[in-house]
Amino acid sequence: MNIGAMLARFAEHWSPKTIARINDYDVRIVKVQGEFTWHRHTDTDEFFLVLDGRLTIQMRDRDIVLGPGELFVVPRGAEHCPRADTETAVLLLEPSSVINTGDAAGELTTEAEPLT
Amino acid sequence: MNIGAMLARFAEHWSPKTIARINDYDVRIVKVQGEFTWHRHTDTDEFFLVLDGRLTIQMRDRDIVLGPGELFVVPRGAEHCPRADTETAVLLLEPSSVINTGDAAGELTTEAEPLT
Repeated sequence: MNIGAMLARFAEHWSPKTIARINDYDVRIVKVQGEFTWHRHTDTDEFFLVLDGRLTIQMRDRDIVLGPGELFVVPRGAEHCPRADTETAVLLLEPSSVINTGDAAGELTTEAEPLT
Repeated sequence: MNIGAMLARFAEHWSPKTIARINDYDVRIVKVQGEFTWHRHTDTDEFFLVLDGRLTIQMRDRDIVLGPGELFVVPRGAEHCPRADTETAVLLLEPSSVINTGDAAGELTTEAEPLT
Protein backbone atom coordinates (compact mmCIF):
# COMPACT_ATOMS: atom_id res chain seq x y z
CA MET A 1 0.00 0.00 0.00
CA ASN A 2 1.76 3.13 -1.26
CA ILE A 3 0.85 6.53 0.17
CA GLY A 4 1.19 8.20 -3.22
CA ALA A 5 -1.30 5.78 -4.74
CA MET A 6 -3.64 6.31 -1.82
CA LEU A 7 -3.51 10.08 -2.27
CA ALA A 8 -4.44 9.64 -5.93
CA ARG A 9 -7.72 7.99 -4.95
CA PHE A 10 -9.49 11.08 -3.64
CA ALA A 11 -9.61 14.75 -4.47
CA GLU A 12 -11.60 16.57 -1.82
CA HIS A 13 -9.95 18.95 0.59
CA TRP A 14 -10.03 18.96 4.39
CA SER A 15 -11.48 15.45 4.54
CA PRO A 16 -9.04 13.08 6.25
CA LYS A 17 -8.91 9.42 5.23
CA THR A 18 -7.78 6.78 7.66
CA ILE A 19 -5.12 4.56 6.10
CA ALA A 20 -3.93 2.61 9.13
CA ARG A 21 -4.87 1.99 12.70
CA ILE A 22 -2.46 1.33 15.56
CA ASN A 23 -4.32 0.35 18.69
CA ASP A 24 -6.71 3.28 19.21
CA TYR A 25 -4.75 5.71 17.04
CA ASP A 26 -5.34 6.53 13.36
CA VAL A 27 -2.88 7.37 10.63
CA ARG A 28 -4.75 9.64 8.25
CA ILE A 29 -3.93 11.40 5.01
CA VAL A 30 -5.60 14.61 3.92
CA LYS A 31 -5.41 17.06 1.04
CA VAL A 32 -5.75 20.68 1.98
CA GLN A 33 -5.89 24.02 0.22
CA GLY A 34 -6.93 27.42 1.53
CA GLU A 35 -7.53 28.16 5.17
CA PHE A 36 -9.15 25.82 7.67
CA THR A 37 -10.71 27.10 10.89
CA TRP A 38 -9.21 28.03 14.24
CA HIS A 39 -9.71 25.21 16.69
CA ARG A 40 -8.06 23.22 19.45
CA HIS A 41 -8.06 19.61 20.61
CA THR A 42 -8.39 19.80 24.35
CA ASP A 43 -7.55 16.14 25.00
CA THR A 44 -4.75 15.31 22.60
CA ASP A 45 -1.63 16.31 20.73
CA GLU A 46 -1.87 16.23 16.93
CA PHE A 47 0.96 15.19 14.60
CA PHE A 48 1.43 16.69 11.12
CA LEU A 49 3.87 15.43 8.47
CA VAL A 50 3.83 17.17 5.10
CA LEU A 51 4.03 14.70 2.21
CA ASP A 52 3.77 17.18 -0.65
CA GLY A 53 3.30 20.94 -0.93
CA ARG A 54 3.63 23.47 1.86
CA LEU A 55 1.59 23.80 5.03
CA THR A 56 1.43 26.74 7.40
CA ILE A 57 0.15 25.86 10.84
CA GLN A 58 -0.94 29.19 12.25
CA MET A 59 -0.68 29.29 16.02
CA ARG A 60 -1.58 32.24 18.22
CA ASP A 61 2.04 33.17 18.83
CA ARG A 62 3.76 32.07 15.62
CA ASP A 63 3.44 30.35 12.28
CA ILE A 64 4.95 26.94 11.64
CA VAL A 65 5.81 26.45 7.96
CA LEU A 66 6.34 22.88 6.80
CA GLY A 67 7.63 21.54 3.49
CA PRO A 68 7.80 17.90 2.37
CA GLY A 69 9.31 15.64 5.00
CA GLU A 70 8.84 18.22 7.75
CA LEU A 71 6.75 17.51 10.81
CA PHE A 72 5.24 19.27 13.78
CA VAL A 73 3.21 18.28 16.82
CA VAL A 74 0.52 20.73 17.90
CA PRO A 75 0.33 20.36 21.69
CA ARG A 76 -2.99 19.53 23.25
CA GLY A 77 -5.05 22.61 23.93
CA ALA A 78 -3.12 24.87 21.56
CA GLU A 79 -5.27 26.84 19.15
CA HIS A 80 -4.22 26.39 15.56
CA CYS A 81 -5.44 27.02 12.03
CA PRO A 82 -3.81 25.21 9.11
CA ARG A 83 -3.44 27.04 5.80
CA ALA A 84 -2.04 26.06 2.42
CA ASP A 85 -1.70 28.37 -0.56
CA THR A 86 -1.45 25.47 -3.01
CA GLU A 87 -2.77 21.94 -2.72
CA THR A 88 -0.83 20.16 -0.01
CA ALA A 89 -0.87 16.57 1.20
CA VAL A 90 -0.43 15.86 4.89
CA LEU A 91 -0.14 12.77 7.04
CA LEU A 92 -1.84 13.04 10.43
CA LEU A 93 -1.51 10.93 13.51
CA GLU A 94 -4.00 11.21 16.32
CA PRO A 95 -6.36 9.18 18.46
CA SER A 96 -9.14 7.57 16.43
CA SER A 97 -11.69 9.62 18.35
CA VAL A 98 -10.36 12.97 17.08
CA ILE A 99 -12.67 15.16 15.00
CA ASN A 100 -10.92 17.45 12.54
CA THR A 101 -12.37 20.72 13.85
CA GLY A 102 -11.80 19.95 17.53
CA ASP A 103 -13.80 22.39 19.65
CA ALA A 104 -14.98 24.44 16.64
CA ALA A 105 -17.69 22.30 15.09
CA GLY A 106 -19.13 23.73 11.88
CA GLU A 107 -19.49 23.08 8.21
CA LEU A 108 -15.90 21.87 7.91
CA THR A 109 -16.47 19.19 10.53
CA THR A 110 -16.16 15.68 9.15
CA GLU A 111 -15.37 12.30 10.55
CA ALA A 112 -12.36 10.62 9.07
CA GLU A 113 -13.43 7.70 6.92
CA PRO A 114 -11.39 4.67 5.95
CA LEU A 115 -9.81 4.81 2.50
CA THR A 116 -11.28 1.61 1.09
CA MET B 1 12.56 19.61 11.11
CA ASN B 2 13.07 17.52 8.00
CA ILE B 3 13.14 13.74 8.23
CA GLY B 4 15.90 13.46 5.64
CA ALA B 5 18.12 15.76 7.68
CA MET B 6 17.31 13.81 10.82
CA LEU B 7 18.28 10.54 9.15
CA ALA B 8 21.62 12.07 8.18
CA ARG B 9 22.49 12.62 11.83
CA PHE B 10 23.07 9.00 12.78
CA ALA B 11 24.49 5.91 11.15
CA GLU B 12 23.92 2.94 13.42
CA HIS B 13 21.48 0.20 12.50
CA TRP B 14 18.55 -1.17 14.51
CA SER B 15 18.66 1.72 16.97
CA PRO B 16 15.43 3.73 16.76
CA LYS B 17 15.50 7.48 17.43
CA THR B 18 12.41 9.24 18.73
CA ILE B 19 11.64 12.33 16.65
CA ALA B 20 8.20 13.26 17.93
CA ARG B 21 5.86 12.39 20.73
CA ILE B 22 2.08 12.41 20.50
CA ASN B 23 0.56 11.85 23.92
CA ASP B 24 2.08 8.53 25.01
CA TYR B 25 3.08 7.45 21.51
CA ASP B 26 6.45 7.91 19.81
CA VAL B 27 7.29 8.56 16.19
CA ARG B 28 10.69 6.97 15.64
CA ILE B 29 13.07 6.65 12.73
CA VAL B 30 15.49 3.80 12.34
CA LYS B 31 18.08 2.62 9.85
CA VAL B 32 18.22 -1.11 9.32
CA GLN B 33 20.30 -3.57 7.35
CA GLY B 34 20.52 -7.33 7.63
CA GLU B 35 18.16 -9.42 9.67
CA PHE B 36 16.73 -8.46 13.07
CA THR B 37 15.36 -11.07 15.46
CA TRP B 38 12.03 -12.84 15.66
CA HIS B 39 9.87 -11.21 18.31
CA ARG B 40 6.38 -10.07 19.13
CA HIS B 41 4.80 -7.17 20.99
CA THR B 42 2.10 -8.73 23.10
CA ASP B 43 0.41 -5.44 24.06
CA THR B 44 0.50 -3.32 20.95
CA ASP B 45 0.28 -3.00 17.20
CA GLU B 46 3.39 -1.62 15.48
CA PHE B 47 3.36 0.69 12.45
CA PHE B 48 6.07 0.64 9.76
CA LEU B 49 6.47 3.18 6.95
CA VAL B 50 9.46 2.78 4.65
CA LEU B 51 11.16 6.10 3.89
CA ASP B 52 13.98 4.80 1.74
CA GLY B 53 15.18 1.37 0.65
CA ARG B 54 13.27 -1.88 0.91
CA LEU B 55 12.05 -3.69 4.01
CA THR B 56 10.84 -7.25 4.29
CA ILE B 57 8.73 -7.91 7.36
CA GLN B 58 8.88 -11.66 7.75
CA MET B 59 5.80 -13.05 9.45
CA ARG B 60 5.17 -16.70 10.22
CA ASP B 61 2.69 -17.11 7.36
CA ARG B 62 3.98 -14.64 4.77
CA ASP B 63 6.49 -11.92 3.94
CA ILE B 64 5.46 -8.29 3.62
CA VAL B 65 7.74 -6.38 1.26
CA LEU B 66 7.67 -2.60 1.51
CA GLY B 67 9.26 0.04 -0.68
CA PRO B 68 9.39 3.81 -0.12
CA GLY B 69 6.00 5.23 0.86
CA GLU B 70 4.60 1.80 1.71
CA LEU B 71 3.30 0.99 5.15
CA PHE B 72 2.19 -1.97 7.21
CA VAL B 73 0.84 -2.53 10.69
CA VAL B 74 2.04 -5.65 12.49
CA PRO B 75 -0.88 -6.68 14.71
CA ARG B 76 -0.28 -7.09 18.41
CA GLY B 77 0.97 -10.54 19.28
CA ALA B 78 2.10 -11.41 15.75
CA GLU B 79 5.62 -12.77 15.50
CA HIS B 80 7.73 -10.87 13.00
CA CYS B 81 11.33 -10.42 11.94
CA PRO B 82 12.33 -7.44 9.81
CA ARG B 83 15.02 -7.86 7.19
CA ALA B 84 16.67 -5.50 4.70
CA ASP B 85 19.23 -6.50 2.11
CA THR B 86 20.46 -2.93 1.70
CA GLU B 87 20.37 -0.04 4.13
CA THR B 88 16.76 0.98 4.62
CA ALA B 89 15.18 3.85 6.54
CA VAL B 90 11.90 3.26 8.34
CA LEU B 91 9.47 5.41 10.31
CA LEU B 92 7.86 3.63 13.27
CA LEU B 93 4.87 4.55 15.33
CA GLU B 94 4.19 2.81 18.60
CA PRO B 95 3.55 3.47 22.28
CA SER B 96 6.50 5.15 23.98
CA SER B 97 6.89 2.12 26.23
CA VAL B 98 7.69 -0.25 23.36
CA ILE B 99 11.10 -1.93 23.32
CA ASN B 100 12.42 -2.86 19.88
CA THR B 101 12.85 -6.56 20.52
CA GLY B 102 9.49 -7.09 22.21
CA ASP B 103 9.47 -10.44 24.01
CA ALA B 104 12.90 -11.46 22.66
CA ALA B 105 15.32 -9.45 24.76
CA GLY B 106 18.96 -9.88 23.75
CA GLU B 107 21.94 -8.06 22.41
CA LEU B 108 19.81 -6.18 19.87
CA THR B 109 17.59 -4.74 22.60
CA THR B 110 17.85 -0.99 22.89
CA GLU B 111 15.67 1.76 24.20
CA ALA B 112 14.74 4.39 21.68
CA GLU B 113 16.52 7.62 22.45
CA PRO B 114 15.51 11.11 21.43
CA LEU B 115 17.30 12.50 18.38
CA THR B 116 18.69 15.65 19.94
